[in-house]
Formats: sequence, structure tokens, C-alpha cells
Amino acid sequence: MSHYAVPAYKRCGLPRMRRAAAAAVVGPSSGATSAAVFRGRQHSRLLISPHGQQHSRARTNSRLFHSNSRLHSEALASQTVTKAAKVVNKEEDEITIELESYPADEGNGVTFGVGRPNIGDIMDRRAKAGRLVAMTAAYSDSDMFKAPAPEKPLAKRWDHHVSAESTIRGPCVLKQAAKHLKKPGIISLGGGLPCPEYFPFESITLKVPKPPNFSEAATLASGETVTIGKYDVSSSTDKVYDLSIALNYGQATGSAQMMRFVTEHTELTQNPPYADWRCCLTVGSTGALEQALRMLFDRQRGDSLLTEEYSFSTALETAVPLGVNVVGVKMDDQGLLPGSMDEILGTWNPEQQNGKRKPHVLYTVPSGQNPTGATQGTKRRKEIYGVCQKHDVFIIEDEPYYFLQMPAYGSDTLKGSVDEFLDTLIPSLLSMDTDGRVLRMDSFSKVVVPGSRLGWITASAQMVERYIRHAEVASQGPSGFSQVILHKLLDEEWGHEGYLRWLMNLRDEYAKRRDVMISACESLLPKEVVSWAVPMAGMFHWIKVNPRMHPDFPQKSLLQIEEEIFHLCLDKGALVARGSWFRAEPKTTPNEETDYMYFRTTFAAATPENMTEAIRRFGEAVRESFRI
Amino acid sequence: MSHYAVPAYKRCGLPRMRRAAAAAVVGPSSGATSAAVFRGRQHSRLLISPHGQQHSRARTNSRLFHSNSRLHSEALASQTVTKAAKVVNKEEDEITIELESYPADEGNGVTFGVGRPNIGDIMDRRAKAGRLVAMTAAYSDSDMFKAPAPEKPLAKRWDHHVSAESTIRGPCVLKQAAKHLKKPGIISLGGGLPCPEYFPFESITLKVPKPPNFSEAATLASGETVTIGKYDVSSSTDKVYDLSIALNYGQATGSAQMMRFVTEHTELTQNPPYADWRCCLTVGSTGALEQALRMLFDRQRGDSLLTEEYSFSTALETAVPLGVNVVGVKMDDQGLLPGSMDEILGTWNPEQQNGKRKPHVLYTVPSGQNPTGATQGTKRRKEIYGVCQKHDVFIIEDEPYYFLQMPAYGSDTLKGSVDEFLDTLIPSLLSMDTDGRVLRMDSFSKVVVPGSRLGWITASAQMVERYIRHAEVASQGPSGFSQVILHKLLDEEWGHEGYLRWLMNLRDEYAKRRDVMISACESLLPKEVVSWAVPMAGMFHWIKVNPRMHPDFPQKSLLQIEEEIFHLCLDKGALVARGSWFRAEPKTTPNEETDYMYFRTTFAAATPENMTEAIRRFGEAVRESFRI
Repeated sequence: MSHYAVPAYKRCGLPRMRRAAAAAVVGPSSGATSAAVFRGRQHSRLLISPHGQQHSRARTNSRLFHSNSRLHSEALASQTVTKAAKVVNKEEDEITIELESYPADEGNGVTFGVGRPNIGDIMDRRAKAGRLVAMTAAYSDSDMFKAPAPEKPLAKRWDHHVSAESTIRGPCVLKQAAKHLKKPGIISLGGGLPCPEYFPFESITLKVPKPPNFSEAATLASGETVTIGKYDVSSSTDKVYDLSIALNYGQATGSAQMMRFVTEHTELTQNPPYADWRCCLTVGSTGALEQALRMLFDRQRGDSLLTEEYSFSTALETAVPLGVNVVGVKMDDQGLLPGSMDEILGTWNPEQQNGKRKPHVLYTVPSGQNPTGATQGTKRRKEIYGVCQKHDVFIIEDEPYYFLQMPAYGSDTLKGSVDEFLDTLIPSLLSMDTDGRVLRMDSFSKVVVPGSRLGWITASAQMVERYIRHAEVASQGPSGFSQVILHKLLDEEWGHEGYLRWLMNLRDEYAKRRDVMISACESLLPKEVVSWAVPMAGMFHWIKVNPRMHPDFPQKSLLQIEEEIFHLCLDKGALVARGSWFRAEPKTTPNEETDYMYFRTTFAAATPENMTEAIRRFGEAVRESFRI
Repeated sequence: MSHYAVPAYKRCGLPRMRRAAAAAVVGPSSGATSAAVFRGRQHSRLLISPHGQQHSRARTNSRLFHSNSRLHSEALASQTVTKAAKVVNKEEDEITIELESYPADEGNGVTFGVGRPNIGDIMDRRAKAGRLVAMTAAYSDSDMFKAPAPEKPLAKRWDHHVSAESTIRGPCVLKQAAKHLKKPGIISLGGGLPCPEYFPFESITLKVPKPPNFSEAATLASGETVTIGKYDVSSSTDKVYDLSIALNYGQATGSAQMMRFVTEHTELTQNPPYADWRCCLTVGSTGALEQALRMLFDRQRGDSLLTEEYSFSTALETAVPLGVNVVGVKMDDQGLLPGSMDEILGTWNPEQQNGKRKPHVLYTVPSGQNPTGATQGTKRRKEIYGVCQKHDVFIIEDEPYYFLQMPAYGSDTLKGSVDEFLDTLIPSLLSMDTDGRVLRMDSFSKVVVPGSRLGWITASAQMVERYIRHAEVASQGPSGFSQVILHKLLDEEWGHEGYLRWLMNLRDEYAKRRDVMISACESLLPKEVVSWAVPMAGMFHWIKVNPRMHPDFPQKSLLQIEEEIFHLCLDKGALVARGSWFRAEPKTTPNEETDYMYFRTTFAAATPENMTEAIRRFGEAVRESFRI
């Protein structure tokens, strides 16, 4: 009983759903706070323990049919598996699982547990689960929206890495009280949630692009106009989210509606290889990083963090006031060098490190790293993951630019299906994370709008639960305006396929800009002293300058020459970022014999003409400083 | 050269502007990041130091003419004062002040420095300042939008209260680089701000109430439909905010546009009595409290926090994991008892307190306190402030319900002007804060929508600056969707008068609900064991039950009887909150000879019928437990 009107572009090539579907039902509730509910068919009930082990032990399989799966799925449609649907209430001692006969998926030579699920699987799962009914402040978690994965291991535990502050966090007593609201007929005088009658917004209407015509001109000419009403959910039979829900208090995890979208998107694009992964919405990755650091670092313990030797300056500025000892790892054109990491970890001696503990966390930006633009290849990522396994290192994977992975410089725009697009993406650390040691940070800032202040993390249930306990007494989750607007656009209007097509389009746009930047550098910079690697993802181009070719070297130091070029460039009318701003260990002195100067430029913001002109000015500054 | 179309209801009774106006101009900037700019008239220039002392020493006066000010202002219109307008760039070593002859305001028997400014003053100041031009990520601060106040003292310094974590916070290096963007003709390749061309929102249209017809029915019938376009600022001559600005990265302070609104609203309603107060937008008061606590508390220092003996449980849950030692102060119907506070502070001995330091911070909710509903009267607030002065205690004033101050139980709805409304409000601690020792937290959650995740703090420039340094590496400020939507509604559509009328209307609605709740308690609760004070603000009613009247006392403890009533009430179909959930010192045992049991109920959410029914059920539960 699906209520989804699937647009034509989402209907193409959808295989039939023929495997386990997660769904949830709860008893009636008259209170303002309750759990997310699916209005699906009736099920028989079975009680299990609350931690979901039963879920992961279920006989169903979950990962199948990456692309061209129609034949496979149709061949399997006559068999049966178990369908699991779960009453979700996080404060409950028991969880109710609903069971139903369902077509099975074993046999038939299909390889299970490999490859990504596809959009058809997910849409079919939604259809079978029925309409999502998640009212004000409804509890939700990823397990409600992803396929069970009995073949996958559970994540390792990270108690020994968790900080004292995080360890003692308990759940909010008022949120715990919400468990009583599932009692039929109960009237709540418990939570101080304002009445939506007093919300001064009757509706919000958006004008947005209609896939695949994403340009501003096309949107003006033929974009979609969509409206979010205050009481859409109660006044219609197919709406799942409205202003009365989104604009009231919610869970710190974010709404069930957006939780479903990001969980499915993560399953579709990352497919983590362990069973108990979960998502939690964030107020953006800067806030998420701060929470992750407070969860993993103790000032008293003398904790250390590994990161790229040139790292995102805001991340460094987030870490340092918390007393985190930041340690830079050497890099090449593919970023972080696993050998350097292994050496640092293997030879760590606290006595030679001011008493600081051996690093137990790595912070890395694997794709289009900020500031260097470096992208780790698949082999590199596997090696990094291996070093982290060897030394018991937890990984914070920051991936704002993951979907902005570009083709080679000067090559044509990529065409093809969303499956082909996903095939071009280098696997994430999360997608190779059999231990559950990765906390991945995704963000809509770089690929939808920064002003949404909306992103999400993916990590093991243990780490996500610790994260939520903090978010409940900090941000309390992201803006309801942001959530309901992005849900309208990404889920209701575009759907997963439309959103992936948007990402493909955006990648093409940034690749064109990247090519303008590289072309300008090719023709306008003095190659006798300046060099670069073409960035293969993201928004940044990292320009390397050789200080030892400078006529004033070594009378002037590397940092002095860098400063001189920076100011000459400003004088000529271009602002670039100095490489030294991003040094992970700013208190150390650069090695004048081996280190280089760097300048970070972005191809995200300026027009192509201005970008070229700015590179010309930068080239002039370098020439003037080097007296070329 | 005002571009404001002032609606009729805002034009009533506006006096002529005849005093100092804050305004700002900066040089041209082609970069994406710049300072807020006013396009006003030309001024001569004067350089002063960056900390604003000159500003506060200027000869102008600022606080005048609360109500009925037309006669005063017209009488003064021929005299002259100095008009100050300032180039704002927080990284600059020098600040440019623009001077201009302007009518003076001394003499004429007007009392300066007392009373609030009025809306007319503010609108006139805006008109004279000219159109606010604050582009993407423009820097702003309250000094740009409030009147200078030379008669007021500067805030005291609080360095000795600030935590180690907060003390070492520096500004973000990338945000500092933005200072170079004011150079004419510069092209920025510096910041990785996405191009708004790729924002998939062409416009957002809202349907909102039109003052004074705030009801849902009136909004459906005759509400306003207003649209926010992507490029409104560049395509029109009077718009100040649009999607291209709001949905890009911004400052952690929030946008200049919303900064102006909350600064003016604070001036209008609080009028802090020291010169260098400032506002900063927040992601809501829970997040703001966490940041404030991290700014003021050191785990290593063994710091202690004073608060009401029954306090907002989420606030307690925010403090405890940070290692904060929470100390409860005795209360009566007006909340916090200054004598109890003075005694705790005056007799504090670290050796008797596990080595914990004497409390240096008070967290208090003065109006409609959560959970007790208590409201501190004016005298009470002055006494509390005095005790804090005596013992060098900094104050966190949490005021989500400040504007929900209600008339006496059963009295008629209040009518009158917004000035009369403001006159009914008990002065805030901020409004009596001559030392700058108050950090006040305001929020739109309870009075607009919780889902905005938008509020603001007001405190001294020193404390706000420390707060911003943290927000830059945490939330990065509130959602742009929330900001631009609230700006459209509150500033452009309603204006200050419309918003104050909205607050008056909301207060009346909650007063009606409060009266339903009290009436139900009067008729349905057993008064031989149950009593209460009528709440005069907020959303909560605090019901006191005498355990010593219970037939099983003292065989059953106070907490056991409380639990029994809670569960009996649940069985009968009503959820109330247990008083013990809010105990500031949960590890201590209640005094069985003197303490009472409490239950918190809210009149915010349920319908009047359900509220009455729930109170009936609660009464039955009490009767059953007490065998009445």
C-alpha cells in the first residue's frame, strides 16, 4: 500500500522488491511525542532484545543487485524470506518485531552481501513498508530504514577511546518520559511543546529545479513549484512531513523523514560492510567534528590526533582549544602517506612527546582534501585503513566533496546512469569499514546549500548513540525549516535518482571550473618555480612553489617568501590562501632544505574570467618576488 | 534616503529621529565576503581605537522617550548632536568613525539615559542610515545597529571567570583573511564558498499572518503571501536579504540582517544600562547554554554553578558531563531566594565541598521558571543581582518565556499599545545590569517556532567575542533558511511593532490556557493535600503535594509516594512530569520533615478539554494514593 507517486525518471528500471524490508508500527498515541510509525499491513508479533542483535541475525539478506538487477530480481520473486518490522521506542526494554512471509533471496547464483543496493530496491521497500507516519518529535533511527544485514559482522566496541565527558552522558529525562506516550488514550501534560496553532506559518512554497534541467535558466522557465502546508500529514493521505511537525521540537537525531532519506542515501552510496551502522543528522560537519572530538578526546589523558600535515584550518582550530595534540602526517599527491602514519604510530614514545599519548584517532578528508585538493585512491584508502587497524586508531572521515570527484583534466563531461556515476566514485573508508571504526561526516553544504546547516554522520550504533546524547544537550538537532525544505526537494520532489543526477550535474560544473583554473595556471604561471597536481575532486587547487629557486633564499626563509608573495598578490588584486595557514603543526619550523611553499586557490566561487585574471595576478606576484 | 515601506500600523505615533544613529560604510568589495554596509549619505572621517571606547565617550545621548515622545522629540528637532557611523571590520587595527552635524538632545527637561527607546526612534535611525547592504558572509555586530550610549559605563572584565578552553581561542585564520576583501577590485580565490548559481532554490514563498489578525483562520482567509527570491538584493532597490546571501556560508554571529533585528528588539525591550553590550545569534538556548558553560567552567578548576533547587532538567544534563558542580538555591513562589544564595556563597568552604570552588556563576530562569512556573518580581531580581555583585558571580539569564508574562488569573485580556505591553513586563536582569555581568539568552522557540533553532544572546562585548570564537568552530551560526524566513516575517513583514503585537497575542492565548488549567485544578484536585501558586508567566504549572498527609508516610518515602502517584496517573491516562526529575542536586536525599512532592504540568500543548480531563485523572491518582 504505497502512497508514493513515483515520477517517471525514478520508475525507470526498478526491479521488484523481493527481500527484507524494515518497517515499524506503534500503538496509538494522542501525545505530542511518539515514535515513527509505518501504516503498513498487519503483522504477527515477536519480542526480542532492544539492541538489535536479533535484527542482524535474521535470516534475510540485504545487499544485492547493484545494476542490471532486473533479471536477478524477477528470477527471485517467487521465493520467500522473512520481513522484519520493528516497534521503535528507544526507552523500551523490549522491542516488538513483526514477522511476515515474504519472497526469499537465497540461491540462484546471486552473490549476496556485495555491491550496492539500488534505488528500485529502496523504493520497493518503502512501498511495502507503507506510509511513514512520524509525528511531532518522533523517535527514529537508521535501523528503521535500512535492510537487515545478517551476513555482516557487528561493529567493534570503542569504550576505551571514548572520553570521560562522553562516557558519563545519560539520556534526557524528559525525552525518556516520552515512552509513556504510546499508551492508548493518554493525555500528555509532560513536555512543554508549543501548540502548532501558534506557529505563524501557514505554508512554505519553493521554486526548485526539475531534473534533469538543473540550471537557473531552466528553473526560471520550467522549475517545479511545490508547497509545504502546516497540516499536510493530517489533511492528505500521502504526505509524510509538514510544518506542524518540522517546526516543533524534534529529536536531536533530526526528523524520521530526513533520517530515512540520509540512511537510504548512505546505503545506496556507501553500503557499510558491518551490520549495526546508523546515521544521525548534524548541524553541519564543523559542529559534528567538535562533538566527535569531545567524544574521543580527554584533555587530562593527553590525547593526540593524526591528520594530514596540511589540514583544514577550521578543523585544527576546533581541536586545539580542547587540548588536543595535533600530529601531521606526510602527504603526496594522493594525500596522507600510510607509511608516515605507521612510522609515527610505531615509534611513538610519550616521553619524547611531552607525555602525550600515542594518537588513537585519525581525522582525514579523503576526497579533494582541504587545502591540498588531494584525493586518496582506492589502494591508498585500504592501506590507511590497514594502518588504523594495526594501531587501534579510530577514523573521522570528513567527506564534504566526496560526490565532486571529477574526470581527468580536459576530458569530456561524463554521461551515463546514476549507477555508472556511483561506479566512478572511489570507495569511501566507510565502505571498507568492517570494524565500525569510521565516523563519516557528510554535509549538504557543498552540494546543496551551506546555509542549510545540515549534514549527517554515519558510524556504529555505539558511537552514534554517544553522539546523540551530546546533541540532545547542545544543538538539539538541525533547523526544522532546513529539514522540511530539504526533505521536500530531495525526497519528495527529486527522490534518490534525482538527487544523484543533481550531484552528477554539480560534479560536471565544478570540473568545468577546475579546467578553467588549470588552463589558466598552465598558461600564466612560471613553471620554472611553480608546479601542481590537477585536483581530482572538490573545490581547491594547491599550488607548489620552490623556495630554493628564490634569489633571496636562504637569507629570506620559506615563510618570509610565502608572505612576500601573498602580499604582492594582494597588491595586484588577488586573494589566495597561504599554505602555512593550514599547517597541522604550526609551532614547528619548516625544513628549509626539503619543504615547499604552497598557496591554496579555489575554483568554486569566482567567474571563469575573474579566476583567470586572479591567476594572472598571482603569476605576476610570483615572478616579481622571484625576479623572473 | 529610506527604502523602507513602513506599514500603517508601524507609522502610528513615530517621533522624529533627533539623535545619534549608528550606521556603517565600507569600501567597495568584489569578493564574496565583506562587511555589512549602509548606503547612506557621505560623512567626514575620524579614526579611533578598535574597542569602541570613543564610541561610548561620544557626546551623543541614546536612551530617551519611552512613550508619548512625539512632543519631546519635536521640541528637540532643531538642536545638534554628533552622528556616528562606523566602518566595521573586526580584524582592522583602526575603525573609521563618520561624523556629521545632527540635532542635539540635551536640555529641555528630558531625562536622558532612562526609559526605553521606541520603535519610531529605531525606524527613523534606519531611515537615516540608509539601506543595509550586507552581502554574503558580511561581518556585523550590535554596535552597528544600536544607538551610542555615552552616559553608560563600560562592562567589567571577566577574564578571571573565563575557562582555559575559552581563553586560548583565537579567530579563524580564513575569516581573518576576509579583511583583505575590502580592497577595491580584488578577486578572491581565498574562501571555498560555493557559487549561488548552484543553489537549487529560486524562491521561497511564505503564507503568514497579517497583524493584528494572528489566528490560523484569519491567516487562511487574509494572510500575507510574501516571497524571498534568490537575487532580491541585486534586483531591487529596497530589499536587504535574499537566498543567495542567506543560503551561503555566513558569520557565526548570524547575518547582519537578523543581527540588526535582534539588537533593535533588545534595545527596545531590555535597554541594557551599560554601553558595550552586544548580541550574537544562537542555534537556540540549549546550544547557547552549552557554549556559555564551556566559556565559564573548567573541569580542572573544580567549578560550581548556582541554580534554582528545581531547575530545567536539560540545563542540568548539559552541565553535569562538563564536570560542573551544581548547587541548588532554595526557592519560594517568586523563585530563587537571595538570602539562600547569599548564605551558600558567604559560608562556602571548599574543604567541606569536595574541594569545589565557591560558585562563580548563577544560571536562572527569572520568568515562568521551568519547572516551577515561578516568576521573580522586580525587587527579587534586584536583590539577586545585588548578591551576585557582592560575591562576584556572573549570571546566565535564560528567558524563553519573558514575553509570556500574564495578567492575574481570571482577569480580562490586556488591551493597549505595545508601549503599555512593555510597561507590564517585569524588568529583566539584563535591564538592571550596570556591570555587564549578565549573559541573557533569548529564543524564538517558545514565541515563534521551536524548529527555527534560532535565538540570541546579549552580553558584554568581551563575553560575546569569546562566545563567537567558539561558535565559529562549532555550530557556525544558525540555519540560513531559518534566518531569512524569520527576517522576512519579523523584520520586513511585521516590523518591531507587529512582532510585539504578536507577542501580546501569544501571551493572551497562553493566559487563557493557564486559566483553563487553574480552573480545572480548583475544581478537580483534593485541596487538603494539593496546593499551587498561579503561574504568572510561561507554560508550566507546578503542583505541590504534601507527603506528610499521606497514610503511608513515613513508611513510604517522599520519592516513593511521588513515584506511586506518577504511575497511578499514567494508569489513568495522563502524563505529568515528576518534580524529582528537576532536582538540582539529585544525589541528595529530600528532607522528609520539610520538603514537598511536586508535579509539573504544561498548559502549552493539550486542548482545553484534554487539559481538564488530564487534571481530573491526576486528581484521581492523588486521591487513590492518599486514599481520600
